[in-house]
Amino acid sequence: MNSYLVPLEEARFVLRELADLDRVAQLPNAESLADAELTESILTEASRLAEGILEPLNATGDRDGARWTAEGVTVTPGFKDAYRQFIEGGWNRLSMPTEYGGQGMPMLLSAAVREIFVGANKAFCMCPGLTDAAVHALMLGADDALKAYYLPRLVSGEWAATMNLTEPQAGSDVGALRTRAVPAADGTYRVFGQKIFISFGDQDLTDNIVHLVLARVAGAPEGSRGVSLFVVPKFLPQQGWQGARNDVQCAGIEHKVGNHGSPTCTMVYGAAGEGAVGWLVGEENKGLQTMFVMMNQARFIVGMEGVALSERAYRQALAYAGERLQGRAAEGSAQPVPIIRHPDVRRMLLSMRSQTEAMRALGYVLAGALDLADGHPDPMVRQEYQDFVDLMIPIFKGWASETAVEVTRTSVQIHGGMGYVLESGASQPLRDVLIAPIYEGTTGIQANDLIARKVLRDGGASLNRWLEQVDRTQTEAAAQPALEDLASSLGEAVASVRLVAQWFAQAHRERPLDVFAAAVPFLKLAGIVAGGWLMARAALAASRLLDATDASESESFLRGKLVSARFYAAHVLPQTGALAVAAMQGSAATLDEWALKV
Amino acid sequence: MNSYLVPLEEARFVLRELADLDRVAQLPNAESLADAELTESILTEASRLAEGILEPLNATGDRDGARWTAEGVTVTPGFKDAYRQFIEGGWNRLSMPTEYGGQGMPMLLSAAVREIFVGANKAFCMCPGLTDAAVHALMLGADDALKAYYLPRLVSGEWAATMNLTEPQAGSDVGALRTRAVPAADGTYRVFGQKIFISFGDQDLTDNIVHLVLARVAGAPEGSRGVSLFVVPKFLPQQGWQGARNDVQCAGIEHKVGNHGSPTCTMVYGAAGEGAVGWLVGEENKGLQTMFVMMNQARFIVGMEGVALSERAYRQALAYAGERLQGRAAEGSAQPVPIIRHPDVRRMLLSMRSQTEAMRALGYVLAGALDLADGHPDPMVRQEYQDFVDLMIPIFKGWASETAVEVTRTSVQIHGGMGYVLESGASQPLRDVLIAPIYEGTTGIQANDLIARKVLRDGGASLNRWLEQVDRTQTEAAAQPALEDLASSLGEAVASVRLVAQWFAQAHRERPLDVFAAAVPFLKLAGIVAGGWLMARAALAASRLLDATDASESESFLRGKLVSARFYAAHVLPQTGALAVAAMQGSAATLDEWALKV
Repeated sequence: MNSYLVPLEEARFVLRELADLDRVAQLPNAESLADAELTESILTEASRLAEGILEPLNATGDRDGARWTAEGVTVTPGFKDAYRQFIEGGWNRLSMPTEYGGQGMPMLLSAAVREIFVGANKAFCMCPGLTDAAVHALMLGADDALKAYYLPRLVSGEWAATMNLTEPQAGSDVGALRTRAVPAADGTYRVFGQKIFISFGDQDLTDNIVHLVLARVAGAPEGSRGVSLFVVPKFLPQQGWQGARNDVQCAGIEHKVGNHGSPTCTMVYGAAGEGAVGWLVGEENKGLQTMFVMMNQARFIVGMEGVALSERAYRQALAYAGERLQGRAAEGSAQPVPIIRHPDVRRMLLSMRSQTEAMRALGYVLAGALDLADGHPDPMVRQEYQDFVDLMIPIFKGWASETAVEVTRTSVQIHGGMGYVLESGASQPLRDVLIAPIYEGTTGIQANDLIARKVLRDGGASLNRWLEQVDRTQTEAAAQPALEDLASSLGEAVASVRLVAQWFAQAHRERPLDVFAAAVPFLKLAGIVAGGWLMARAALAASRLLDATDASESESFLRGKLVSARFYAAHVLPQTGALAVAAMQGSAATLDEWALKV
Repeated sequence: MNSYLVPLEEARFVLRELADLDRVAQLPNAESLADAELTESILTEASRLAEGILEPLNATGDRDGARWTAEGVTVTPGFKDAYRQFIEGGWNRLSMPTEYGGQGMPMLLSAAVREIFVGANKAFCMCPGLTDAAVHALMLGADDALKAYYLPRLVSGEWAATMNLTEPQAGSDVGALRTRAVPAADGTYRVFGQKIFISFGDQDLTDNIVHLVLARVAGAPEGSRGVSLFVVPKFLPQQGWQGARNDVQCAGIEHKVGNHGSPTCTMVYGAAGEGAVGWLVGEENKGLQTMFVMMNQARFIVGMEGVALSERAYRQALAYAGERLQGRAAEGSAQPVPIIRHPDVRRMLLSMRSQTEAMRALGYVLAGALDLADGHPDPMVRQEYQDFVDLMIPIFKGWASETAVEVTRTSVQIHGGMGYVLESGASQPLRDVLIAPIYEGTTGIQANDLIARKVLRDGGASLNRWLEQVDRTQTEAAAQPALEDLASSLGEAVASVRLVAQWFAQAHRERPLDVFAAAVPFLKLAGIVAGGWLMARAALAASRLLDATDASESESFLRGKLVSARFYAAHVLPQTGALAVAAMQGSAATLDEWALKV
């Protein structure tokens, strides 16, 4: 029922034709990408694990989620064994540093692999995903002693890690946190406070759990400038295997709409009185800086969750539509036909598919850009990619997560009454992805970041550089008769982005609130254009490969890609007109003093 | 947390200013509407019951849904007592026939009351709602003996009724059903078969349950022309109080995304061997005709569920946004502010509010039209309203249910992380309403009905008559400087509807599939325009009342209404352009032979 067919042909195509594969492959540690066969075999092996081990546990996790007792959290039956196989295969450490046992793969490849795993079982992937993030935070901020002790065990997967930011009064505004850290005589700290929404804050998968905790040292400045980062392990370090229990407890887990296999914990530090023992990572009051450096990656990963769950939902809906017999075909048939033959079901499937492909394309392109921004030998080139990444991350995170909600909901609709029944599995992608537009910064937060830090701060320079790339693609497509409609839709959509950006440039001084009220419509507009840009590039590549004699893609794949691009041009790109109007003319009503009085 | 504030001022305004209240009030049985004080007191009393009795059980139903055992289904704790109070107050029989003890109120009033109840507790309302539908079916089709036996008990609420249409292979295509009815010597029938998705198919609220069952008599024609309607009671008639158990069993209930308080049953007829005893309603093979006559009402009610749950979600989000302190205001503030002060949160709230108001306006206008189509003394006038109803029902059902999914999801987003936690109640309206675009005919089915039976069949005549009404409103608004933007948005949107309708008229002969692939975009386009038409009428009325000295509405209500209309004009109406493009240019990709091969 829940078959998850990993789109390998699509992954290969996007890697090669859209993402900067050749350029990324020249980076240090990127040999795996240079070797097409190796890339292929990694993707194939990942798919095998995903289909064989993770996928069968996805519905189990939904039905039989993590459970809390006073002794601790137990995960879904089967997760333990899957985790063992996952780390034995080294899948947890694809993008972890080689000096601690990781594989140091480029993001471009690990992102493709991650999509496969998350599509098969998002809840399971939260645990290794957070450990991956914590490893990168420690690499950035921790001293050698902390690194030497924690990194080998985290990289091996023997231990897992968590990220502790949110508190009841400190969600989007992390700087409002109140957890305290009191310096102790031995150079460690004692941590007191409560954190909420901590994924895998407790579990029985690993022998130890390493909590990265944001807290405030006594006397620190208010707000985000007074936040420090600490390592607080569940079991304290000790010669030999495992030390004493630290003063950190999981006080409960949330009952959620989805992600049942991933325990969302309330963590209490220092309840026993003495405080939880913590070690400072980096300098005092610089905790958020370390977190911010990781933020691009974290937000990128949430965008990829949107891609993965959209793909999963699409595959489920496609399979169902091919099997479910109901109604006669419009052209007249004696027997019931599979519903995939009904025009509106096709429309829904293509709307899922074309948007998922557009999102994936942007995800991979961004992954390659993250690699190049990080590792290219030429600092000018690094900066160029960094500018692109900084601009595009909030767009990708916001647009892909919001679009994924729409795409996964369409799958429920295609399933009809069965979509509403939990056992069919049709609603799980929607329920699992509904948190994506919220965590790691809501869509509103992404949009404010986009406007204030990415568009207005540099006077639109990086936005314009990207739009010039879009123009080039648009010109190229306009030269091909078969892609004229696509080019024309894309041209109008790009013009909308420019129009709104110009309006921002004028409006933000006199009416800054108007600009912020327009931020999300602009983000969606930019996301749709980014997707359209890459669908146009994909269509250009597919056209070329259809004429080539040595294309490795099948004809049906390439023609399908052209159809997706045309569908996107007719159904998705035109939405940009309304978003531009909403952005430029919609703020007055939003901010009207009478707006929300009743 | 879950406070449901019934929007009485809004209800009064829409009844009086938008729906044809004065005209409806002149109909027989509509005295209640003619008397403003009586109307008011009915709405106030309904609100009191909703807030005091139904609302507190809404979260209970979600958490502690109906349960199945082999002995039968038990409902959520507290539902029994609430049901008793509900029927004691006569709320179940507002629109039931007076000759059997009902109150025979016009739909216009009962729809307003129903919105209040459904907003407070949708799952609970399914039981009396289905009984109401069954009473109308029996009024239409049953003979006097059946009426005399069943109607008094159903109208009193002593017994409840269910509607049994769907079978595993017969969902959207009801005509594919296989349940058999075998004539018995005494004029009754023996029914054999399985029905699924039967709401309140079993429960412990009432002494008896009267199942209306669609089945096929041996030798009947295939498809929808061979379907008959039967009454199959859980307990057989007998002199005195209650007869023997009939051969009908609830074999299980579904675990669903929402609506947990409403048991969704699999019903098995005739499993013991002899068959369940059933009585024919009306003539053999005419069962679907009776059902079709009721269909407008059933679809109308689902649209109103969209309104009710959108209103509920809006109220929850508004309350949360007013209380939740997070972040500083954009203009700079030392302390955290309620998130309602953040521009994007305001944008989300207004998008919920303006669309909910537009949907409600259409719902009430339709309710009034249903009354006039049914009861106006002049057959010409009846026909006029009937044409409007026939055109508008699929639009309202499709658009309001789809929009409600978007609106209720926005509430989850406004709640941030808490939105994802079940205990907050934020996700319940979304989970409860997710079935609305599916049951009583999916959005695709509504759209096909709209195109084929309502637009193409009469050559666009009833569509054009409605659009002329919209034109008049548009002209009136254009004459007021303050409503110019609204008038201009509405004008463009109406032009889009006409453009697509003309394209349909041309395309449907040569390329009928193209037209059906465009059906849902057209339905959404028409729905947005219908909402815009009524928001413009509401704005005209609000402007007038602001200048009037004797308006009963508060200034903040009237100014708020003007803001809603302006918001709708800038954020919602412009979406029609993209929908028109999708309809007219999007079918080729949808129907491309390569579209869904991979």
